[in-house]
Amino acid sequence: MTISVSAVRTTHWILTAQCPSRLGTVDVVTRFLREQGCYITEQQSFDDSSSCRFFIRTEFRPPEEGEFDAGAFEAAFAERAAPFSMAFELTSPERLTPVVIMVSKADHCLNDLLYRYRTGQLPVAIKAVVSNHPDLAPLAEWHGLPYHHLPISAETKAEQEAEVWRIVEDSGAELVILARYMQVLSSEMSERLAGRAINIHHSLLPGFKGAKPYHQAFEKGVKLVGATAHYINDDLDEGPIITQGVEPVTHADTAEDLVARGRDIECITLARAVTLHLQRRVFLNGSRTVVFQR
Amino acid sequence: MTISVSAVRTTHWILTAQCPSRLGTVDVVTRFLREQGCYITEQQSFDDSSSCRFFIRTEFRPPEEGEFDAGAFEAAFAERAAPFSMAFELTSPERLTPVVIMVSKADHCLNDLLYRYRTGQLPVAIKAVVSNHPDLAPLAEWHGLPYHHLPISAETKAEQEAEVWRIVEDSGAELVILARYMQVLSSEMSERLAGRAINIHHSLLPGFKGAKPYHQAFEKGVKLVGATAHYINDDLDEGPIITQGVEPVTHADTAEDLVARGRDIECITLARAVTLHLQRRVFLNGSRTVVFQR
Amino acid sequence: MTISVSAVRTTHWILTAQCPSRLGTVDVVTRFLREQGCYITEQQSFDDSSSCRFFIRTEFRPPEEGEFDAGAFEAAFAERAAPFSMAFELTSPERLTPVVIMVSKADHCLNDLLYRYRTGQLPVAIKAVVSNHPDLAPLAEWHGLPYHHLPISAETKAEQEAEVWRIVEDSGAELVILARYMQVLSSEMSERLAGRAINIHHSLLPGFKGAKPYHQAFEKGVKLVGATAHYINDDLDEGPIITQGVEPVTHADTAEDLVARGRDIECITLARAVTLHLQRRVFLNGSRTVVFQR
Amino acid sequence: MTISVSAVRTTHWILTAQCPSRLGTVDVVTRFLREQGCYITEQQSFDDSSSCRFFIRTEFRPPEEGEFDAGAFEAAFAERAAPFSMAFELTSPERLTPVVIMVSKADHCLNDLLYRYRTGQLPVAIKAVVSNHPDLAPLAEWHGLPYHHLPISAETKAEQEAEVWRIVEDSGAELVILARYMQVLSSEMSERLAGRAINIHHSLLPGFKGAKPYHQAFEKGVKLVGATAHYINDDLDEGPIITQGVEPVTHADTAEDLVARGRDIECITLARAVTLHLQRRVFLNGSRTVVFQR
Repeated sequence: MTISVSAVRTTHWILTAQCPSRLGTVDVVTRFLREQGCYITEQQSFDDSSSCRFFIRTEFRPPEEGEFDAGAFEAAFAERAAPFSMAFELTSPERLTPVVIMVSKADHCLNDLLYRYRTGQLPVAIKAVVSNHPDLAPLAEWHGLPYHHLPISAETKAEQEAEVWRIVEDSGAELVILARYMQVLSSEMSERLAGRAINIHHSLLPGFKGAKPYHQAFEKGVKLVGATAHYINDDLDEGPIITQGVEPVTHADTAEDLVARGRDIECITLARAVTLHLQRRVFLNGSRTVVFQR
Repeated sequence: MTISVSAVRTTHWILTAQCPSRLGTVDVVTRFLREQGCYITEQQSFDDSSSCRFFIRTEFRPPEEGEFDAGAFEAAFAERAAPFSMAFELTSPERLTPVVIMVSKADHCLNDLLYRYRTGQLPVAIKAVVSNHPDLAPLAEWHGLPYHHLPISAETKAEQEAEVWRIVEDSGAELVILARYMQVLSSEMSERLAGRAINIHHSLLPGFKGAKPYHQAFEKGVKLVGATAHYINDDLDEGPIITQGVEPVTHADTAEDLVARGRDIECITLARAVTLHLQRRVFLNGSRTVVFQR
Repeated sequence: MTISVSAVRTTHWILTAQCPSRLGTVDVVTRFLREQGCYITEQQSFDDSSSCRFFIRTEFRPPEEGEFDAGAFEAAFAERAAPFSMAFELTSPERLTPVVIMVSKADHCLNDLLYRYRTGQLPVAIKAVVSNHPDLAPLAEWHGLPYHHLPISAETKAEQEAEVWRIVEDSGAELVILARYMQVLSSEMSERLAGRAINIHHSLLPGFKGAKPYHQAFEKGVKLVGATAHYINDDLDEGPIITQGVEPVTHADTAEDLVARGRDIECITLARAVTLHLQRRVFLNGSRTVVFQR
Repeated sequence: MTISVSAVRTTHWILTAQCPSRLGTVDVVTRFLREQGCYITEQQSFDDSSSCRFFIRTEFRPPEEGEFDAGAFEAAFAERAAPFSMAFELTSPERLTPVVIMVSKADHCLNDLLYRYRTGQLPVAIKAVVSNHPDLAPLAEWHGLPYHHLPISAETKAEQEAEVWRIVEDSGAELVILARYMQVLSSEMSERLAGRAINIHHSLLPGFKGAKPYHQAFEKGVKLVGATAHYINDDLDEGPIITQGVEPVTHADTAEDLVARGRDIECITLARAVTLHLQRRVFLNGSRTVVFQR
């Protein structure tokens, strides 16, 4: 199967940065870009007075003449950023981010991500699909993707996670997408993946954490169900929220009906969060996130 | 000021009923209506297999000839309903339900309800506005409504609630609307008002119960805030949910911004729940509700 | 690949009926069901005073003892229905409705429908996928479905439609799903498929009919885009609307971005409409529809 | 009645600017602010390649020491902006923008705006309420606002508009809010108010332009109704859209029901658009708008 990358825009770059709040943080970025002859097409900045952190995201076109030297750009900007203790990243939207997708038995999110992947809507290079069950192997194989069936039990958890980590490291994956992977990651694993593992929880957090959230929702008699995409952290279902989605439900929906209805919301919410992350629109801000929506 | 009741429909009646699940519950209602020559314009029934309860709501037009005798109708139907242990209620949509509204300082929900009331969109007769603060008196007075300022403290709570109860009883109120009334009702009060007191909580329950839910939401970094209208019961913010509403928020919204943005959702959600209740579209079903939406 | 039908409920049946408005239409159905010892689990009826048409949908469980004889049921009910000129249909939710899906090049709706199909969420037997382009053959073939590539031009239209019709007839298809099939059906074809062909138009009708609705939307500068699922009729994009969905967009979205963002809404809206149709929740009511939502 | 302005933030300023696209437009703004010692709390910029226009909005805090001289700031920035043909505006969010509200008979939008006004949520100084009907005088008077009843007919239109214009001019109104004002403004009036008159149309434009959109929607059988807030221009209901809102409806909703349900959406949509405008988040971009949401 041919994977096509749809280049929606002409070549451009994304520069993101963050640092402690102080005077001059926007100017550091914009003045440098001006000097470099870079044309800013879109920019958003936010200064969080409660956390005293500054965040900025800039999309720009490099100068028309000559070849854009990303390395030189980064080296030069590093000098400007240093006095501000400003961390930054230069990204090309056309670059395919290496990812690993983790699943269990539910296939809807994987199916949705793979669809977007094969039609070029997700700028990723899927290095592997990892699962504690064998069920989703056919779907991965039809896409020509390696599938790792890594069963897990209380006794084998450490070894299984070590194997998962090996796959992540060896593949150079920069993002792990937990697409309804139903196992709880250990503290060590969560720490290793801090800021680069996105999970979809099938409820509107902080409501209905843990297992069987749709059944909890049914018992509670809520009139809305939803899903939350968040970065993994040490606490179960507590990581910084990226995006959430909702769907109205009625008294006539059984718990199984809620499960079925929730699938669409989970797919869309996870895909949105992953896309925002890949577009470098999401910044960790303590226990929260800053999201520069288009 | 003239309060006009907008009679949207020609004269018709609403018959609601519920009972334990068993064969023949729908037929009990429809056969009787047919015999009475009543014309059914809309009907919804639901049999809950988990709670083994049956619910039905029927809108009908009485026979064209003669005068409809509601009392005779009820007496005759009672005989049919008895073998099914079927509780029922016959209501006229044009009847103005006596209500008492309870508020504290926040005025948005009261303002919204009074607007709907004075333009005839809410078929209520507002008997009194009760508050533990004096702030909203002008708004009530402009509508020509009695305003009872009943301050409350830990020591005076029992007396204050006794006074509230006296007002409710004396006025014949059939519904108490807690429109951002910020005091927690005692168990006794909650029990007395079971099934006929609707509260608006400014969060998507079960998330963020208790005080300052918007501040809790801000700390948590959610990307959606909302409101929940529910019947009061003994547990704080735990009563059967009638309806919920949501609003997206961003990292740029401070806690005060969330408070401001949430007002619209609270108004709409409470108004919807009250309207559904007045239209007899809501049935208590254990800790949940059955809602026959239009 | 194994296609599994998820039997969410115990065995039950769906009886739908419609006729000219008159007294006794609900009773005709419920009395008969009572006599037959059928247990009504859910029922909705609506009497449209503007079109003078009555609609009813009932879900019921057959008597526990004995085998349910659908044919006998229908014959007996036909006698009751006749004096009311009542058309009715008895359906089993477990029955797989034969369908034909028509596509062109865009694959998102087909991908979505086939996912729901293979996971047993859509009670259909897909007889064929028909397209005027060859692009989507691999997707159909992976699902083991016959794919008919039927190119079309102004000159060959009549023949192509004749071939489409042959496929529909021979397969016994009861529903044709136009999943972003971009050709306009002729009047004859539309008439033949009246009430049993659902199309997804990628705009909020009546806005932006015809070609390139996202480009029209971009030019107009709307802040919401959407999709409309409707039955095909003789007028382009004018058929009775079943359901609609929306998505907010911004100034930063180019026309291509709108196309991309609209895909999710199109998939969900079409799937919802098809599901409602299969559940017999949708009734044609002149140029409109009656939809008995769960 | 006391009108309180809720000062949510510490003192800060808003600088907006726009000009033809070219290199260096962001830097012009940010470098100047840096030199002035101004602290940027939030900034958004967008370069529209299709219209070749650049837009930027910056919120900043002035230097802590000394008094901020807005006039000097503007004079100095004008010199920097001139070579870019950059139009700009410096605004204080605490400043109350003088407005005139125009209404006819429907009072829901006026009621909603006046509530927000009297509770300090809308930073406006309402100079007058103008109507072609007398009905809404009591509401305006309770708020202590001048009410001008200016009847209109085909013959008196020019004179009536002249009087409206006089009120707008004399009051120094910078924004005219057409809150369900049902008369069509003449070309001359539209031109005079270009970019500073916001209208709420009770449909999702471009669908259902003109009169009785809810009745049109009912006839069409749509499953969503909505409202569109837009700037007035010469074409009826064609002005640049600021924001839109939707509400689901069903077959059971009559045209009058749609009217009733639409009120909430109209109020919220209009209030949102007015708020965005007052926050200087909206820019005219040809027939469209750029909206920098929070």
